[in-house]
Amino acid sequence: MTGTDGRQKWLTVAEELAAALRVDAAERDRRGAEPSAEVGALRRSGLLAIGDWATQQAVTRVVGAADANVGHLLGYHYLQVWRSGLFDNPNFQPGDNVFWAGVSNPLDAALELRPVDGGFEVTGRKTFATGASVADRLVVSATRTGTGDKVTFTLDAKADGITYAGDWDNIGQRLTASGGVVFDHVHVPSDQVLGTHDETSPRLSLAALGFQLVLAQLYVAMAEGALAEAAQYTRTTTRPWFLSGVDAATADPYVLGTYGELVAEAQAAGFLTDHASDLLDQASRRGADLTRDERAATAAAISSAKVVATKVANQTTSRVFELCGARATAAGYAFDRFWRNARTLTLHDPVSYKAREVGAYYLTGEHAPFTGYS
Amino acid sequence: MTGTDGRQKWLTVAEELAAALRVDAAERDRRGAEPSAEVGALRRSGLLAIGDWATQQAVTRVVGAADANVGHLLGYHYLQVWRSGLFDNPNFQPGDNVFWAGVSNPLDAALELRPVDGGFEVTGRKTFATGASVADRLVVSATRTGTGDKVTFTLDAKADGITYAGDWDNIGQRLTASGGVVFDHVHVPSDQVLGTHDETSPRLSLAALGFQLVLAQLYVAMAEGALAEAAQYTRTTTRPWFLSGVDAATADPYVLGTYGELVAEAQAAGFLTDHASDLLDQASRRGADLTRDERAATAAAISSAKVVATKVANQTTSRVFELCGARATAAGYAFDRFWRNARTLTLHDPVSYKAREVGAYYLTGEHAPFTGYS
Amino acid sequence: MTGTDGRQKWLTVAEELAAALRVDAAERDRRGAEPSAEVGALRRSGLLAIGDWATQQAVTRVVGAADANVGHLLGYHYLQVWRSGLFDNPNFQPGDNVFWAGVSNPLDAALELRPVDGGFEVTGRKTFATGASVADRLVVSATRTGTGDKVTFTLDAKADGITYAGDWDNIGQRLTASGGVVFDHVHVPSDQVLGTHDETSPRLSLAALGFQLVLAQLYVAMAEGALAEAAQYTRTTTRPWFLSGVDAATADPYVLGTYGELVAEAQAAGFLTDHASDLLDQASRRGADLTRDERAATAAAISSAKVVATKVANQTTSRVFELCGARATAAGYAFDRFWRNARTLTLHDPVSYKAREVGAYYLTGEHAPFTGYS
Amino acid sequence: MTGTDGRQKWLTVAEELAAALRVDAAERDRRGAEPSAEVGALRRSGLLAIGDWATQQAVTRVVGAADANVGHLLGYHYLQVWRSGLFDNPNFQPGDNVFWAGVSNPLDAALELRPVDGGFEVTGRKTFATGASVADRLVVSATRTGTGDKVTFTLDAKADGITYAGDWDNIGQRLTASGGVVFDHVHVPSDQVLGTHDETSPRLSLAALGFQLVLAQLYVAMAEGALAEAAQYTRTTTRPWFLSGVDAATADPYVLGTYGELVAEAQAAGFLTDHASDLLDQASRRGADLTRDERAATAAAISSAKVVATKVANQTTSRVFELCGARATAAGYAFDRFWRNARTLTLHDPVSYKAREVGAYYLTGEHAPFTGYS
Repeated sequence: MTGTDGRQKWLTVAEELAAALRVDAAERDRRGAEPSAEVGALRRSGLLAIGDWATQQAVTRVVGAADANVGHLLGYHYLQVWRSGLFDNPNFQPGDNVFWAGVSNPLDAALELRPVDGGFEVTGRKTFATGASVADRLVVSATRTGTGDKVTFTLDAKADGITYAGDWDNIGQRLTASGGVVFDHVHVPSDQVLGTHDETSPRLSLAALGFQLVLAQLYVAMAEGALAEAAQYTRTTTRPWFLSGVDAATADPYVLGTYGELVAEAQAAGFLTDHASDLLDQASRRGADLTRDERAATAAAISSAKVVATKVANQTTSRVFELCGARATAAGYAFDRFWRNARTLTLHDPVSYKAREVGAYYLTGEHAPFTGYS
Repeated sequence: MTGTDGRQKWLTVAEELAAALRVDAAERDRRGAEPSAEVGALRRSGLLAIGDWATQQAVTRVVGAADANVGHLLGYHYLQVWRSGLFDNPNFQPGDNVFWAGVSNPLDAALELRPVDGGFEVTGRKTFATGASVADRLVVSATRTGTGDKVTFTLDAKADGITYAGDWDNIGQRLTASGGVVFDHVHVPSDQVLGTHDETSPRLSLAALGFQLVLAQLYVAMAEGALAEAAQYTRTTTRPWFLSGVDAATADPYVLGTYGELVAEAQAAGFLTDHASDLLDQASRRGADLTRDERAATAAAISSAKVVATKVANQTTSRVFELCGARATAAGYAFDRFWRNARTLTLHDPVSYKAREVGAYYLTGEHAPFTGYS
Repeated sequence: MTGTDGRQKWLTVAEELAAALRVDAAERDRRGAEPSAEVGALRRSGLLAIGDWATQQAVTRVVGAADANVGHLLGYHYLQVWRSGLFDNPNFQPGDNVFWAGVSNPLDAALELRPVDGGFEVTGRKTFATGASVADRLVVSATRTGTGDKVTFTLDAKADGITYAGDWDNIGQRLTASGGVVFDHVHVPSDQVLGTHDETSPRLSLAALGFQLVLAQLYVAMAEGALAEAAQYTRTTTRPWFLSGVDAATADPYVLGTYGELVAEAQAAGFLTDHASDLLDQASRRGADLTRDERAATAAAISSAKVVATKVANQTTSRVFELCGARATAAGYAFDRFWRNARTLTLHDPVSYKAREVGAYYLTGEHAPFTGYS
Repeated sequence: MTGTDGRQKWLTVAEELAAALRVDAAERDRRGAEPSAEVGALRRSGLLAIGDWATQQAVTRVVGAADANVGHLLGYHYLQVWRSGLFDNPNFQPGDNVFWAGVSNPLDAALELRPVDGGFEVTGRKTFATGASVADRLVVSATRTGTGDKVTFTLDAKADGITYAGDWDNIGQRLTASGGVVFDHVHVPSDQVLGTHDETSPRLSLAALGFQLVLAQLYVAMAEGALAEAAQYTRTTTRPWFLSGVDAATADPYVLGTYGELVAEAQAAGFLTDHASDLLDQASRRGADLTRDERAATAAAISSAKVVATKVANQTTSRVFELCGARATAAGYAFDRFWRNARTLTLHDPVSYKAREVGAYYLTGEHAPFTGYS
């Protein structure tokens, strides 16, 4: 089953998972536990195995709207599998129902990779390794002693010598297990090495763009999720304001006008992000033929999506409260989680530099540099 | 020649016309003459004959970015041909190189249509008939005496009894010939009657949506055009600010960041509008099978595009000045024409009621009523 | 000691209290306990006794910037004393170091006040009684059986028959003890009756405006507090972005530009609110001579302040995160409390109707009606 | 007559002049003639002679709201007299009913000042000398040959050797005579020399701040003027939208809400600017005692006002059209002049660097440098 039919089937699966996640999203946010149960649900859903890029993206949005934590875990899982594939290494097998996470915060000092018999040994610590502590397998990058090569490899997430700091305690994306990881002489068998990073390769440089794109998708999802939940509340619970002259909040001109503006902006961000996603998929399929110009155009489109989606996510998740009224601030609803999630994830890297990138590409054709964030 | 190849060919033609229009757009705006020469250029370009909806839309954007007046005339020409086709009347022939315009401002009193031998006679006056005075043929709506039927028919634009008030003198869209038309017992042969408006027909109701969509396209085009012209000026003429620490305006962090934000928002508006355009094309192809639900979804998508595009057009055409600097306000550049055009055309009908429509559809599923504006 | 000297002394006291509150504001927000210790600190500071309106307002802003909960309790305390004075009843004595709160949510059903020997008995329940459960004395409004008069009186907050629901559990303003109060045949001695509400009296109608004004002050304080705390973090902790080309976050052009915009907007909101405060003070001093026109002008000025301050508070408390970076989302900082507080308190009543009020007064001179919110 | 009484009298005079200017403001904007008649009206009004700073500012706002050109000429006249006074040179006499203008664009090459018998000779050209060609007297700055001193002096505007280029033809502020001036060996008698610029003097550095402040005042005035004119149109001419359910545009919820937002923002900008004006007046009165810290605080307050007023002016002058409807774009009303004026004058120097200044002062206490723009 492929193409549109396949996509529709997976969207239905995603909607079912989303419905289940919505039931206790507020409660789970409050508890802030490691998302083991959530990863279990992802495994059971079958969604982990989707291979089609566009379907992956669509499914990430649906799940992310219901629970941005789980959307984040799922979107990053797809990315780890996808970026591992960029090395064209036949050793790499995504596996069945295997949940992948990555360890590679570009701003940390690099892990140290020392050649040993049968492979390597990796040592060091990294922060912000979303999903790693609840993953089955990890994609890890480290710097080889002596050569200075940046090598990417996979590991069993429970391998000897790996410990998880469990130190992710932030205001948003609380269930993403985004804490630190410590590697203490962890053995890396040769056949788990994916390849060496060539910093001049447009193709390998796509990995960073993938993360930027999925972040934009999640921002859009957050806005969509906040709107959907707010609308449900407005329909069922919000009381009309006594000066409004209407007998239902759903007939209040200001409520309707504001929904219209927020919905329209979120849709615009969504289509822009979908377009960027298509470009990245095309760039990815170009393989070794991908040119620097094509890569630059893709990068600019993704940054453009990130700029708009960032604004939409932060704005929408805050303004929806105006559509619900004062009583919607009761802690039990935890409606603030949408904003807390958006505010946290939109800080991943500074959006002002993404706007700068878009502007420079438009104005002078300047290519975004190949970095961990562009 | 069809499909992508055809589209690409027409886009090239449109780009050539756009380049020619850009040369004296400022000067033509200042003169504010009737756009006869511009309609002539449209005729010569061959663009009037494009039949494919998506190509029409793409071409309208390209031409509209260079000169929103001509984009407006062209986009409305396509609409007149398209909406005439909604009556499925075999008498209707768009003709070769024929430039069409319409006479149908919904807020005016209706024209009076009186049966006479061999057809009808139409009498009355209408305002805001964009392009009519420079058109070859007109699509006109009038109310039949006695029955009260709203009848649509075509006329030769130079038919006896038609006079043009030439009273369009507004701050923007100055070259759109959007003045009034007076009909004094103008004869309408029977075979020029397209049909009677059935106010309950989803299909016929699409006409109003077509205008809303093309307005959104033109708003996007205005933003695109202002950005392109500003960028050209920033690259060639803007001096770096003495406190910026950079030696070219194209390296100023604020200039780059603002370009990035404006470009990203304009792109988002563009993709949202393209999506709405696709939906309208699909709805139009559904023919008599088009349901009220499908029509409502299409209307909501178009209103959504209009909400975002309105904001983007007004904001972009004003803010680009900050990217050019004080000397760009010299009258010779007439850079204010982008804002004047945007400000004028975005007032076509109040955007607050479009936002309300989008909100009501999202919140309660309320269908936009069938009106001249929705 | 009066005038400027007195004001300066109290501002110093307020700054000292604010400094102390800042130390554990995040921790206290997390615990979410009843604010008994905070009210104790207010009593010890001497601030409760300030009689000068302008000084009260200035002090509320300083304390509210450090801890919006305590600013809220303090600002409302001043209001209760002030609005009790509007009845010109010599029986009313604010007392020494007495902390006042009110019970009067206009949207609840009224409390029932039954005449008994020596006074009245009050019965019923009210929601959202900020500070009541930690207050010394209460100002309460109830409807007299038989006459339907709306009577205002004072009570000892610990009087027999009063119980506090302790049901305030919201995402923001968590330490304001804004839960419900139940009155079960609580005795109201005659000499604690302040007066009967005359719904046509401009002077008595000022009470509602006082609450609107203090809300605006608190919104401004929230923005000021968020900026101050963010600036402290940016200076000491934020790392420069690796693409910024500068070696400190305090030299980043986007960080500086965004601080500038947010600071400027917050200052504008502050001066607008100060102006509205002056007008209310003047209106209050006019006593029985206050005209409906003067009252309307005062109401419009306050609503104007509320419109701007609402926007500034929500925007600033969210955007400051961009000035601090991703690590500032660590839960330990609880920087989200500024936004949670702003989002919660700005929903007190819908700001769209305040904008409408301002617009109607400007456009047609329409007076805001005398209600619990205007 | 001084103090409040005097101010009230002058405000009445200003209102009368404003009323007269409003009558033909659109027509005069279209003609774009040199503002000789306007300067004549200023002379006859007596407003040129006002000595009190706060009254000057208030009057500039009133006149500027009616006609931003005339407000500009008047505000700059006051500045020339004031900044001449900063030299404390007893030779300087503002004169009776004398209209002053300045020649000192900081971005041009300096004029050359050569010592000759009895004084100096000045030669060179400057651009953007607002009001010079219609002035009675000029304040001019030039660089002394040999010493390199920057010397300021006064000249009769019709002195031999001065010619006016008449080359101001811009989209806004069309009647401000802001063209270039050519000096060809113009004699400067010694007693017309005001002094030599000491670039380290906080007091003399206030001149640049004065211009920044008056620009902010004019931006606020533009917003106020656009709102007043729009409101007049909405009340008398705008038709209610057919879907609004109300029978007058003045009852439309969106019209009222938008007026409320725009009015509130304009008021906030106004009070912020008034506060900055007070600070500058105080700094100016401090004379030689003015410290660099006081100067920096004043500069930051003025830049803050400029940031907010810039946004308000551009936004308000564009959005008021939404409150009037499509027919308000008729060229005869020339309502676009408010936006054209705002857009032109707000580009005087880039507002992004003003925001940067405010941010740097807030974040690190950095003093704005002493320049022609700060």
